[in-house]
Amino acid sequence: MLSNGRRARIIRLFFLAVFTFTFSDLRAQEKGPLPVMPLPVHVAQGEGEFVIDGHFGIALKGYQEPRLERAQQRFLDLLSRETGIPLWREARLKAPHFLVQTGGPSAPTQQLGDDESYRLEVSATDVQLTAPNPIGVFRGLQTFLQLVRVTPRSFSVPVVTIDDQPRFPWRGLLIDSGHRFVPVSVIKRNLDGMEAVKLNVFHWRFADDQGFHVESRKFPLLQQKGSGGFYYSQDEVREIIGYAHDRGIRVVPEFDMPCHTASWFLGYPELSSGQDPLKSSAIDPTRESTYSFLTGFIGEMAALFPDSYFHAGGDECDPKEWEGNPRIQQFMRAHAIKDGAALQAIFTARVEKIIASQKKIMVGWDEILQPGTPKDVVIQSWRGPESLAEAARNGYRGVLSSGYYIDLNQSAAEHYLVDPLGASAAALTPEQKARVLGGEATMWTDIVSHENMDNRIWPRTAAIAERLWSPQQIRGVDSMYERLAVVSLKLDSYGLRHRLITEEMLERMTGEPDPEPLRVLAAVVQPPRLYQRQELRNFTDFTPLNRLDDAVPPESDTAREFNDIAKRIASGKATLEEWRQAREWLVLWRDNDAKVQPLLKRSFLTQDLAPVSRNLSQVAEIGLEALDDLQKNRPVSADTRQRNIEFLQLAAKPQAVLLLMVAPSVELLVQVTRIQ
Amino acid sequence: MLSNGRRARIIRLFFLAVFTFTFSDLRAQEKGPLPVMPLPVHVAQGEGEFVIDGHFGIALKGYQEPRLERAQQRFLDLLSRETGIPLWREARLKAPHFLVQTGGPSAPTQQLGDDESYRLEVSATDVQLTAPNPIGVFRGLQTFLQLVRVTPRSFSVPVVTIDDQPRFPWRGLLIDSGHRFVPVSVIKRNLDGMEAVKLNVFHWRFADDQGFHVESRKFPLLQQKGSGGFYYSQDEVREIIGYAHDRGIRVVPEFDMPCHTASWFLGYPELSSGQDPLKSSAIDPTRESTYSFLTGFIGEMAALFPDSYFHAGGDECDPKEWEGNPRIQQFMRAHAIKDGAALQAIFTARVEKIIASQKKIMVGWDEILQPGTPKDVVIQSWRGPESLAEAARNGYRGVLSSGYYIDLNQSAAEHYLVDPLGASAAALTPEQKARVLGGEATMWTDIVSHENMDNRIWPRTAAIAERLWSPQQIRGVDSMYERLAVVSLKLDSYGLRHRLITEEMLERMTGEPDPEPLRVLAAVVQPPRLYQRQELRNFTDFTPLNRLDDAVPPESDTAREFNDIAKRIASGKATLEEWRQAREWLVLWRDNDAKVQPLLKRSFLTQDLAPVSRNLSQVAEIGLEALDDLQKNRPVSADTRQRNIEFLQLAAKPQAVLLLMVAPSVELLVQVTRIQ
Repeated sequence: MLSNGRRARIIRLFFLAVFTFTFSDLRAQEKGPLPVMPLPVHVAQGEGEFVIDGHFGIALKGYQEPRLERAQQRFLDLLSRETGIPLWREARLKAPHFLVQTGGPSAPTQQLGDDESYRLEVSATDVQLTAPNPIGVFRGLQTFLQLVRVTPRSFSVPVVTIDDQPRFPWRGLLIDSGHRFVPVSVIKRNLDGMEAVKLNVFHWRFADDQGFHVESRKFPLLQQKGSGGFYYSQDEVREIIGYAHDRGIRVVPEFDMPCHTASWFLGYPELSSGQDPLKSSAIDPTRESTYSFLTGFIGEMAALFPDSYFHAGGDECDPKEWEGNPRIQQFMRAHAIKDGAALQAIFTARVEKIIASQKKIMVGWDEILQPGTPKDVVIQSWRGPESLAEAARNGYRGVLSSGYYIDLNQSAAEHYLVDPLGASAAALTPEQKARVLGGEATMWTDIVSHENMDNRIWPRTAAIAERLWSPQQIRGVDSMYERLAVVSLKLDSYGLRHRLITEEMLERMTGEPDPEPLRVLAAVVQPPRLYQRQELRNFTDFTPLNRLDDAVPPESDTAREFNDIAKRIASGKATLEEWRQAREWLVLWRDNDAKVQPLLKRSFLTQDLAPVSRNLSQVAEIGLEALDDLQKNRPVSADTRQRNIEFLQLAAKPQAVLLLMVAPSVELLVQVTRIQ
Repeated sequence: MLSNGRRARIIRLFFLAVFTFTFSDLRAQEKGPLPVMPLPVHVAQGEGEFVIDGHFGIALKGYQEPRLERAQQRFLDLLSRETGIPLWREARLKAPHFLVQTGGPSAPTQQLGDDESYRLEVSATDVQLTAPNPIGVFRGLQTFLQLVRVTPRSFSVPVVTIDDQPRFPWRGLLIDSGHRFVPVSVIKRNLDGMEAVKLNVFHWRFADDQGFHVESRKFPLLQQKGSGGFYYSQDEVREIIGYAHDRGIRVVPEFDMPCHTASWFLGYPELSSGQDPLKSSAIDPTRESTYSFLTGFIGEMAALFPDSYFHAGGDECDPKEWEGNPRIQQFMRAHAIKDGAALQAIFTARVEKIIASQKKIMVGWDEILQPGTPKDVVIQSWRGPESLAEAARNGYRGVLSSGYYIDLNQSAAEHYLVDPLGASAAALTPEQKARVLGGEATMWTDIVSHENMDNRIWPRTAAIAERLWSPQQIRGVDSMYERLAVVSLKLDSYGLRHRLITEEMLERMTGEPDPEPLRVLAAVVQPPRLYQRQELRNFTDFTPLNRLDDAVPPESDTAREFNDIAKRIASGKATLEEWRQAREWLVLWRDNDAKVQPLLKRSFLTQDLAPVSRNLSQVAEIGLEALDDLQKNRPVSADTRQRNIEFLQLAAKPQAVLLLMVAPSVELLVQVTRIQ
């Protein structure tokens, strides 16, 4: 909807994915990867297609349970949405050509390492999905849904046989309901998205300094004082756990401690380390009363969450609070605790024992790994792959999150190429490698709200999901982007709002139902990567997230496309069509400024975009000149070229908390013009 | 999103609605109607604006009840969505500048004629909403939400004082869950839409020949055999009733009888008139067992639905079934019943007594009005305003639905100009007029699914809502369309999918994420009006509703806009800008064919659109020639002109179940060219 670039790319992709079957000899030679994410382990493509029409019938064979019935209904609902054929009601009553064969049950509570394999055989007349347990069935049904396409004859799925299973057993998404409360409906649709791309761990973080967002019945002041009235009731938590279980997804709760805990102290100030509990964000590890509180609290939460793992956080403790409290200092001296890290290690060991007493295994961030940490504790690495490898060498299991921070506006390709067994982990022994359980994308909400969250999570998380599911050697970035575009469209049917939200936010910013010129500008800008955005804009917990850097996707497809073309032009490899496309875009951008400026003036949310648009226009003008120079092999003065390059480099710097992503591509073009 | 025409119009509108405040002297003179639907009874506009920012605070004063708390939260959620400011969490805790003053409770069960008045006073610093009861508060909150706009300084609401109350006490929307089951989520979001435009009766029809979609505990075979597994549980019904009550909306259930009842007989064949119950669609009115069944069933449903009114249908009985059954014939002879209508009258009288015994008032379609019908029965008129006037003259209260059949693809203007007290009702005495309670838009689902339903209901139902709420003399169609465009955008925030669904369906039809050329075509076609669509396309209950006539809105905004311009050009009154706009559109349409044809070939759902697009291209070419001829005052040969007119008239006929709405407008242009 947003981007001309995206459209151009997709049209090309669909020529591949949809069309080629009309040229079937051609296709037999050219069969590319299926437009599926994650790519299955083994695919044998055949000839022909399985047609989906009003006669579609499905039946469950073998092992039966209500979860399978519900999965079947969910599948039919989605297939109906993908086709507009009302299969949701009738397909269970028709003669079945789609047979689902389930071997037996999975564990009542889903376990790390549960079998998720399936076999999907599609012929021109029948479909057979076979799996040892319901989880494999869920995975196979999603693969089928991704294969559905429209052709000149019908909706159909190509003839294919797929054998599939995941590479890593822990493939997660963290949603941070600590910084900001995330409504149940948002959690649910993102669980739907997780199922679509075969993720299997929902890491749910409930509290941070900003808020405590889940109901404790033992310690009700936690949510009563800490949530502003917005928290998950225990019934809602159970509902979400059931919803996730229906999709083959474990729910691992996180209660981050001993730091990031300011919100706990609103109800229970006696837990705090600070002399003023209202200015404290660290739990006091020196008081026995802390541990009796935690024994009660963790006990309650361990009963609420059936998963075998329990995340106790442990990140980013600032020792200053402890050092500033004379009573804590005295305790440390009395017990010969040398510093804050050592004090935290003592705390962690106590918490680990409490968790273990609940028959659960502790998970924690890098910092919890200390001499003496029990070997079954799982380390979640946010610092980098090296700490994960180091943990594995020392006998600890770990999950990688460094490189998968989807709040930091990196590209899908950047995330995609981060491998839990890449970098230094590649040198681990097989036994050590087996300790690397997988990875987790992290949706932190310090500067993302539940409104624009989908646009941060999707579609890029599908690339991370593929990294964690598919064989390690599948690393082709071009193929990933082509398939990602198809999957992004499919995720619409699951109710995810990543494609809608940009449009809605642009409408809101302008008050207009079709703010086309702003859309053109929005398609080529991105929020700055990593932590630069926070440096450029002053965010508090109450900052409205309703500006263009909140609205646009973290990655501009149009700019990426344009950059690919610019590279080919610069290296003399571009086709005529690519020259034409480059020129068309540059003209669009040059002429857009006159159209968008009157619009930008009308709203306080868009006024600061005026110089960004002017820069785009000028960048485009320079680009068009460069194209002319290159096409006519016309020499340019060294001065002009230098001036243009300087301008382009300036235009590539952040403005209005946005990066003009096409400036460096135009610089590529200018750099290859010939000097007089 | 769809239409360039809509965009042009809206930009003009927003110049009026948003901009003018920058030219404040100008504005003082030019203040048009507020961009609100329904228009309030009394509006006094002032100078200045009330700013909405992070400091916004609201408080409830006077009478308190949980429903008001929930309304406040709903209001804050919507205000947050309209602005992107996270007021949903904080605004109840801030110093309140928005005071809601509620006089007292409304009746525990909402009654026909309950006071819905409110007074909304917006100053530059404060807002005061005063209402005698919670229902008036709900109405006033919606007015405020519609007034929110973005300006160069902030989000704000203009300074204004509004005194408002409805013209009619019965302002309804019928949703037909009989032909097709409509999921709870779809019902809910449409109740949100009803609240937005101040409708107050949800007429919920549960059964038809195609299905029986609500749970009966006394007669469970009704839903078990009649629903295909999709029905509303009684808990869900209660949930919906509560949801509606929260929004000041009554829920009137309809169980249509004695005809359209085939689905009842799947579980209870003994009710049927037919010798083969599986081929019967009429209840047997001659057996006492029928009435003991209905006594039980109506008793159960009357207890489930708290409203004082109970709709028993009664429409479209075909006497043939009764005439074809010798036993029924014999009964009629024995009791001297002269025909089917007389037999139905006996049935209706019995049903009315059953309903009355439950302390409820019967509502029924036109046909139930027979000699001897009790005077408190309410007649819903589908046949026409005349039958409503006739009923009023005879002492019966009535509700108008004729003219408000939103499934029939009429224009908003057509619906808007139908007045329950227009036509022959205008001649009624004041006492008789008071019997005309209002009207109901009817969303029949024979050929609309829950997927594209929003696009049939919205935004046109806002025009009907205004007819039923606002003073009779408010009838300006241009003003209505301008405000309708603003309200349509607002309704997005309520989760309604009328704007999204066209886009999603076009994507599905093509398999493409941005099918721009199909969008251009879609923007100027409409499904045929009234019952012509059914004549052109063979619909069964299982027909997938996934083609272009399902996807496009019932009314093309672009075509209407173009037609307005064509009329002004033809009458010599067009501005230069209008000439330019006409030419721009015609060029777009002429050139679109080459772009869209390759796309149309790829999908079986779009192949039949090829001639529609070719026609559009040719129509546009003729239009461009006509513009040239007119501009240059160039004479054309009578032959050419005649040939063109013949083609345009042909092109205006339905093709692929679509009307090319711009063909008649181009004919207007050709008609005024000068003959050689």
